[in-house]
Amino acid sequence: MVSIINDVFLKTLSREKTSYTPVWIMRQAGRYLPEYLETRKKAGSFLDLCKNKDFATEVAMQPLDRYPDLDAAILFSDILTVPDAMGLGLYFEEGEGPRFKNPLQNEKEIQKLDIPDVEEKLNYVFNAVKSIKDALRNRVPLIGFSGSPWTLATYMVEGKGGSDFLKIKKMLYNRPDLINHILKINTETVTKYLACQIDAGADVIMIFDSWGGVLAHQEYESYSLNYMKVILSNLNLLGYQKTPKILFTKGGGQWLQAQANSGANALGTDWQTNLSSARKIVNDKVALQGNLDPAILLSDPKLIEKAVKEVLDDYGHGEGHIFNLGHGITQFTPPENLQALLETVRNYSPQFHKK
Amino acid sequence: MVSIINDVFLKTLSREKTSYTPVWIMRQAGRYLPEYLETRKKAGSFLDLCKNKDFATEVAMQPLDRYPDLDAAILFSDILTVPDAMGLGLYFEEGEGPRFKNPLQNEKEIQKLDIPDVEEKLNYVFNAVKSIKDALRNRVPLIGFSGSPWTLATYMVEGKGGSDFLKIKKMLYNRPDLINHILKINTETVTKYLACQIDAGADVIMIFDSWGGVLAHQEYESYSLNYMKVILSNLNLLGYQKTPKILFTKGGGQWLQAQANSGANALGTDWQTNLSSARKIVNDKVALQGNLDPAILLSDPKLIEKAVKEVLDDYGHGEGHIFNLGHGITQFTPPENLQALLETVRNYSPQFHKK
Repeated sequence: MVSIINDVFLKTLSREKTSYTPVWIMRQAGRYLPEYLETRKKAGSFLDLCKNKDFATEVAMQPLDRYPDLDAAILFSDILTVPDAMGLGLYFEEGEGPRFKNPLQNEKEIQKLDIPDVEEKLNYVFNAVKSIKDALRNRVPLIGFSGSPWTLATYMVEGKGGSDFLKIKKMLYNRPDLINHILKINTETVTKYLACQIDAGADVIMIFDSWGGVLAHQEYESYSLNYMKVILSNLNLLGYQKTPKILFTKGGGQWLQAQANSGANALGTDWQTNLSSARKIVNDKVALQGNLDPAILLSDPKLIEKAVKEVLDDYGHGEGHIFNLGHGITQFTPPENLQALLETVRNYSPQFHKK
Repeated sequence: MVSIINDVFLKTLSREKTSYTPVWIMRQAGRYLPEYLETRKKAGSFLDLCKNKDFATEVAMQPLDRYPDLDAAILFSDILTVPDAMGLGLYFEEGEGPRFKNPLQNEKEIQKLDIPDVEEKLNYVFNAVKSIKDALRNRVPLIGFSGSPWTLATYMVEGKGGSDFLKIKKMLYNRPDLINHILKINTETVTKYLACQIDAGADVIMIFDSWGGVLAHQEYESYSLNYMKVILSNLNLLGYQKTPKILFTKGGGQWLQAQANSGANALGTDWQTNLSSARKIVNDKVALQGNLDPAILLSDPKLIEKAVKEVLDDYGHGEGHIFNLGHGITQFTPPENLQALLETVRNYSPQFHKK
């Protein structure tokens, strides 16, 4: 195995000593970058961009080319490629969120749902992983990712990103067997999907449980966390023990203790969570990733510097912190504001890593 | 002062012994009731309904007439009456959320914002309080309410119920002076508004901080909780010490300890929060209200019974629990399912109140 030149992110994931706090940004390849918008124009639709490995590589590399301080790259793709591969027909309405042509509306449709031929149907994703990995020339590690089984299920049942999630919750409470059927299929598919991403070159994997936080506290473990645990342990059984694994349940700050026992190496945290309390709760058992409010990047470099320092102070001395936002960077972010964030992390964080 | 016939809710708010756990339901007067839809048809728009004391009384009484087990009534109104009284021009698009014709879009508009003549502009609300109070004949206590200063500000700046809150957050980070100006005006207005509701007959007041949970943990106290505290303490200074006060920050389950020190008598909790943990965190200093997932009411009586028992078990033995949902009841709830909830609370809860 060729070693990664900048391994600060990997070392933090395995709780080894580093000289500063690593940083990457959720959705770092995205619409806030003018160069992204250029590529997007050439590529056509968002899905066209995801499905073309050259364009996907181009946009995945853009933030790294612009910001030398980024400590990781992430696959350019979408969490909904998985239900799309299952035949649900993903599409994007301009200015709206994602939609499915064929959401799971009844028992018959759910019973018909099956594990897709991941290698074939999602081949374009693995090609993108390979291509980005090549382009990186081991400069920084590459993160592969998937949506969590529960989060994918919310889109599959609601047909879109929901706000009240009443369709899936009604089903969850009335027909948990149907939800569990979907979740099992998602779990097997995601396991295979992540394994193939690792095979294609992903150095780290992350599971985005974007909608786990809408579950009731009694249901979170049964319907979201436990399925993520199965993915993690099955990946280990398949021989991927050494690949670090990150879980992020947005809105799940009250359940960090349970998450810390999932087998993940790191947990994502959102801006509602106090990092120093979170660190006590997880008892330094896992690394913590996060958690600046993305909206702060709409202010100015001076305010950003102050806010970034607060997050670093909040985590405090020692290893195990990966700096990130608490959610994806917004499209309205001036690129120079992200520069201010990255510089502050790099300049201010070494003090927390001294002996 | 005439005493209230069913004072179980009031006793729980002052942590006195009761024989069962009191229950009321957020949005208990609402679209899930066919009799509500009838009145709504007669009244015209939703705002017409709020502004006519006879119709407002009719709908506020409907759940009490249908469900003898409800332990409280609540004013029928909307949290956005306050910015409407400030001249922002509240309206509702059919099938959409509330909107403002004149949101606060720039510094000039914000500087012009002023405390309205609450007694005149919101007179229709106080008339509704009086009328509902009369109709109740002291059967159960009447809850008056307001949105929190922060929650009102989100609508005032965004112009509608937001999902990313980037406008107000951008302003918060860039121009905290402007946000604090809005929040101060909201605080004074809400204080007066609640005082007038108490004068008109409200026995309890509740502040709905529906969007406090979108704030970063560092900002929640400064921009939401502290202003709510000012309202509570000013109400006390104005002589309303004896009126019990409830705070509910939706999505604020990680900040219950700070909320418990606000001077409120009770705190609302949503379904993401584990009630027994919450009880430990607030150290039995305040009562706790909540916290069943409203989506469970889309299932059937057997499942509802089980879920209600779990919430009661979760809080456990002793005083200080007010049963409620973790958010408003949905319009899709079959009315008989609420009956199942109420019966279970009444029949299952007495065991927790035995010596």
